Amino acid sequence: MKNKPSGYTGRILRVNLSDKSVSIEEPGDKFYRQYFGGTALIGYYLLKELKPGIDPLGPDNKLIFSAGVITGIPCAGSGRSGVGSKSPLTGGWGDSQAGGFWGAELKRAGWDAIIIEGKAANPVYLWINNEKVEIRDASHLWGKATKEVEKQIQDELGDKGVRVTQIGPAGEKLVRFACVLNDLIHAYGRNGHGAVMGSKMLRAIAVRGHQALPLAHPEKVREVAKWLADNYKVLSAGMTAHGTSEGVPVLNEDGILPTRNFQEGQFKGYMDLAGQTMTETILVGRDNCYACPINCKRKVKVGPPYNVDPVYGGPEYETIAALGSFCGINDLKAVAKGNQLCNAYGLDTIATGNSIAFAMECFERGILTKKDTGGIELKFGNAEAMMTMVEMIAKREGLGDILAEGTKRTAEKIGHGAAEYAMQIKGQELPMHDPRGKVALAIGYAISPTGADHCHNMHDDEFAVEGRAMEGLKELGIQEPLSRLDLSPAKVRTFQCVVNWEYFRNCATICMFLPFNHSQIMQLVNGATGWNTSVFELMKVGERALALARVFNAREGYTAKDDIIPDRLYKTFNSGPLKDKGIGRETMHQAIQTYYKMAGWDPEQAVPTKEKLQELDLEWVCSLDD
Amino acid sequence: MKNKPSGYTGRILRVNLSDKSVSIEEPGDKFYRQYFGGTALIGYYLLKELKPGIDPLGPDNKLIFSAGVITGIPCAGSGRSGVGSKSPLTGGWGDSQAGGFWGAELKRAGWDAIIIEGKAANPVYLWINNEKVEIRDASHLWGKATKEVEKQIQDELGDKGVRVTQIGPAGEKLVRFACVLNDLIHAYGRNGHGAVMGSKMLRAIAVRGHQALPLAHPEKVREVAKWLADNYKVLSAGMTAHGTSEGVPVLNEDGILPTRNFQEGQFKGYMDLAGQTMTETILVGRDNCYACPINCKRKVKVGPPYNVDPVYGGPEYETIAALGSFCGINDLKAVAKGNQLCNAYGLDTIATGNSIAFAMECFERGILTKKDTGGIELKFGNAEAMMTMVEMIAKREGLGDILAEGTKRTAEKIGHGAAEYAMQIKGQELPMHDPRGKVALAIGYAISPTGADHCHNMHDDEFAVEGRAMEGLKELGIQEPLSRLDLSPAKVRTFQCVVNWEYFRNCATICMFLPFNHSQIMQLVNGATGWNTSVFELMKVGERALALARVFNAREGYTAKDDIIPDRLYKTFNSGPLKDKGIGRETMHQAIQTYYKMAGWDPEQAVPTKEKLQELDLEWVCSLDD
Repeated sequence: MKNKPSGYTGRILRVNLSDKSVSIEEPGDKFYRQYFGGTALIGYYLLKELKPGIDPLGPDNKLIFSAGVITGIPCAGSGRSGVGSKSPLTGGWGDSQAGGFWGAELKRAGWDAIIIEGKAANPVYLWINNEKVEIRDASHLWGKATKEVEKQIQDELGDKGVRVTQIGPAGEKLVRFACVLNDLIHAYGRNGHGAVMGSKMLRAIAVRGHQALPLAHPEKVREVAKWLADNYKVLSAGMTAHGTSEGVPVLNEDGILPTRNFQEGQFKGYMDLAGQTMTETILVGRDNCYACPINCKRKVKVGPPYNVDPVYGGPEYETIAALGSFCGINDLKAVAKGNQLCNAYGLDTIATGNSIAFAMECFERGILTKKDTGGIELKFGNAEAMMTMVEMIAKREGLGDILAEGTKRTAEKIGHGAAEYAMQIKGQELPMHDPRGKVALAIGYAISPTGADHCHNMHDDEFAVEGRAMEGLKELGIQEPLSRLDLSPAKVRTFQCVVNWEYFRNCATICMFLPFNHSQIMQLVNGATGWNTSVFELMKVGERALALARVFNAREGYTAKDDIIPDRLYKTFNSGPLKDKGIGRETMHQAIQTYYKMAGWDPEQAVPTKEKLQELDLEWVCSLDD
Repeated sequence: MKNKPSGYTGRILRVNLSDKSVSIEEPGDKFYRQYFGGTALIGYYLLKELKPGIDPLGPDNKLIFSAGVITGIPCAGSGRSGVGSKSPLTGGWGDSQAGGFWGAELKRAGWDAIIIEGKAANPVYLWINNEKVEIRDASHLWGKATKEVEKQIQDELGDKGVRVTQIGPAGEKLVRFACVLNDLIHAYGRNGHGAVMGSKMLRAIAVRGHQALPLAHPEKVREVAKWLADNYKVLSAGMTAHGTSEGVPVLNEDGILPTRNFQEGQFKGYMDLAGQTMTETILVGRDNCYACPINCKRKVKVGPPYNVDPVYGGPEYETIAALGSFCGINDLKAVAKGNQLCNAYGLDTIATGNSIAFAMECFERGILTKKDTGGIELKFGNAEAMMTMVEMIAKREGLGDILAEGTKRTAEKIGHGAAEYAMQIKGQELPMHDPRGKVALAIGYAISPTGADHCHNMHDDEFAVEGRAMEGLKELGIQEPLSRLDLSPAKVRTFQCVVNWEYFRNCATICMFLPFNHSQIMQLVNGATGWNTSVFELMKVGERALALARVFNAREGYTAKDDIIPDRLYKTFNSGPLKDKGIGRETMHQAIQTYYKMAGWDPEQAVPTKEKLQELDLEWVCSLDD
């Protein structure tokens, strides 16, 4: 590891697929300190360069992959990267993050970000071999499963070490919740970037990098990495042992395991889906992301008739719940198969499971019939039907072609009150966290510029108890744990702090599962760059990222009226630990109003005021055309 | 230095002079993390305990001395402490800080703060000997000069090491800008706390402490202290050599040396007043505050007829300008004498010089005549008159008795348009910094809850250039130096960051002259307490302190209409480097409006909104009675 002078200079690659031009931008230290990478970097370019009203699936949309200032440093959590574009699901701001190795590889190839413009005439893939950039024909890859495509690209480039991010057939077919995948298993899941990539006829981006990343103060990075090495076995024991779905039993006990399209919060077959069960049954290996010892990723193998291939990993919590309890299914093997299908076709498992559950409820309520489903008995609990529907969505066959438009558009199309059963916000399907048992999530869902999202939200089960999470919050001046059911101004205050930091995390593209506190991440930034930054400055980066996204949405016509949650989430459960508890409409309204004012947002437009933008050093945003 | 477990527990002493009761409060770790010490701690108690509308000079006012969490640690800058009360000058929030050793001694005696309530029947002083607290008779000290009183107290307590903070005869006589002094020379100058102390018949507080201050991580404190030891000779060379008035030549060159009651910005005799001249002429020694190697304090000696005694120190910059150029006087010996008189009588040198300059201008304009002055030719440049007026104010003799009420009340009393020449805001006299050449100061003057103040303001001459100050600002995300004449939203943003930190400094009661950056001060806090705080949390402490003070003022009737600067400061100079430059009225209006909105203040009441208070964890403030 070589030392380098203070300051950060990264390079951004701009590729226009229409005219095949390639250019390089080097925005310099000041830019990176302000926009960092990930969400904020993406926000800067999307807001500057996209005109409001463009078609998300047309050539005017841009797709931006972005690592960041600390991506690829030799410390766990730094392998992630983000992608953004105007979302075909929401018609507004879209961004999503994925783990793996691709982000680190991009950095080692000498790039912080890739801006993809225009649309190729024929299928192509991008080959980034350190400084060399090549747009290559991908006609022979079009329509193939992701596993085949990855192998073929690595074969034709003659290097097994090439890291491939790609869409699958679902992205090619413009399924609005198609995802982009790194190494077959790490999904930029939300917001339908896979469809955007498909619309550009870009099947994959292959990257190989051999450059060492210079660090200003390697010892500062090493200290944090060593701390993790010394502590992860205790702090992350459950994640290592059972993966992200280790929490299923606790969620069920707490009454917030999303079940049957949010009709219930407990699922009889929960234990069949738990990580602990996976460990004892179908697990054949554990996997990691760049530089991470925790190994929270799963590898599962299932024999006939499912035939689940470990190369597609294993289902993570979101997938377990979305294809499992949310569809009333307790067959872990079927869920593993559904996961494999999603990864092979390139579908967001959350939106896929959510859409199928929506269809199941519509079927049970008679809004959809066997005529619509092509004879499928599309009831909750029907694992076979779930697996079939995944394929039908990916291939846009029958009802799948309608569901491929997302639950919001599907409900509009099929009518008969189906909208009541579409668990979506701003067009994006809700992830697998029921806010009735951790109510701050509801604010986060409502105000999220991406639509319902769990990756920049507050999961306050984590700090309702004392412990390391609470210690982290104390760094931000949050001194006391609050009840999960609290939606008071004090909770809103905590929410704002937490969410601004989560946005920063998505700028740094650092993993949310690592037990680092704020000052350790600050130390990583200082170690990498030689800056002497502060948690204050980093919090402002996060707040800036959110502001950019909200302004993007406002230009697309979103207002406070769109900051809502599905009506169903105001209903209380009739039994279980949350019986008669939940989110009051008026409480929620007040909490959102409090948030707007606390955040410095105009309460009607629900967008940062001019003065807030100025405070965030975003004066230029004030003079953007509407 | 012994290690101690994480967390901070301090003790607060409450003394009621009316009934002579003494009690102890131990508010615990959470309180200190939120209110810290200094301004915020004082704000907490004053806002909770004082009813609006009380007489600042009556027994209902409370006088709170407060050190803080890091006061007294073995590192330079930590000797300061603050004092607060309802100000008899402004009728609103009053706080002031002083250097020296008294704050550290208070901590070593086992106390963080002293709340003084009620009013003694006869003159008393307080003797705090570690845990022991005694209210002692001070009848024999009443009316005496500070030097005599200090000696007498030390003699009667039999310990030369006793630290004495006291008022002088001016405080006894309720001069509204009487100060409180530590060790005769370190003044809590602003806001007239000396009169409050006088109104309570409390002449002095003597403190002796022998307790070691336990540090959670002594090595973290040592690291910062060592950094200063290694660097101060370069970074603070000018301060050591020539004291705080080393900058006089630069200020004059820049056209902002306050001259003749802000009628001019350059003074012909500036070099006679400069620290460099003091060094070559009357300087006989340098002095320091607790644990500080910089030695910016001066000791001067002047023979007959001035007879300046080094025990009273030497004039600092504010005094040099206030009694010097502001009064058109270039006689350094006379200024030194004036300084001695102020310290002997216990007068704020800033308000004293400002008041005399005001009277001089009124005299020159014929609003005051020799009949009013008792025959004194009270013209700018008359050093003899200045020295005489200091004594007349302190003793409340003749015109001095009127001036002792402050320029605002004096102008109201003498009429004839005198208000135009009273360089005050909210009743407090402006300090010696002309905002026309560093315009952010104007916002700071206008919005300061104490009235015009330089101790929680932005002196942006410091970072208009690259250098260490700029590096410090980068920690807060301020990436570029801005012109001193810039009042754009970008400057307002910078101002807000700087001022919130300055407020924090006044909570930590750490010296503004030390070249520490934000992260070093954070390290001192962590080292002392074992907290893992962040600059974010500390910035919020500062913002909280300001919020408390603004709410205090709002309850006393202050609104946005009072956030103004004297009309004169909108006038441009006819010559010099600032010829025709300065502060535009509309620009200033816009800047203040921008600040209110950026800060989350209601633009009419000029007070933090309910949501801002909630965000600052000040929910309790929302339900205070008006």
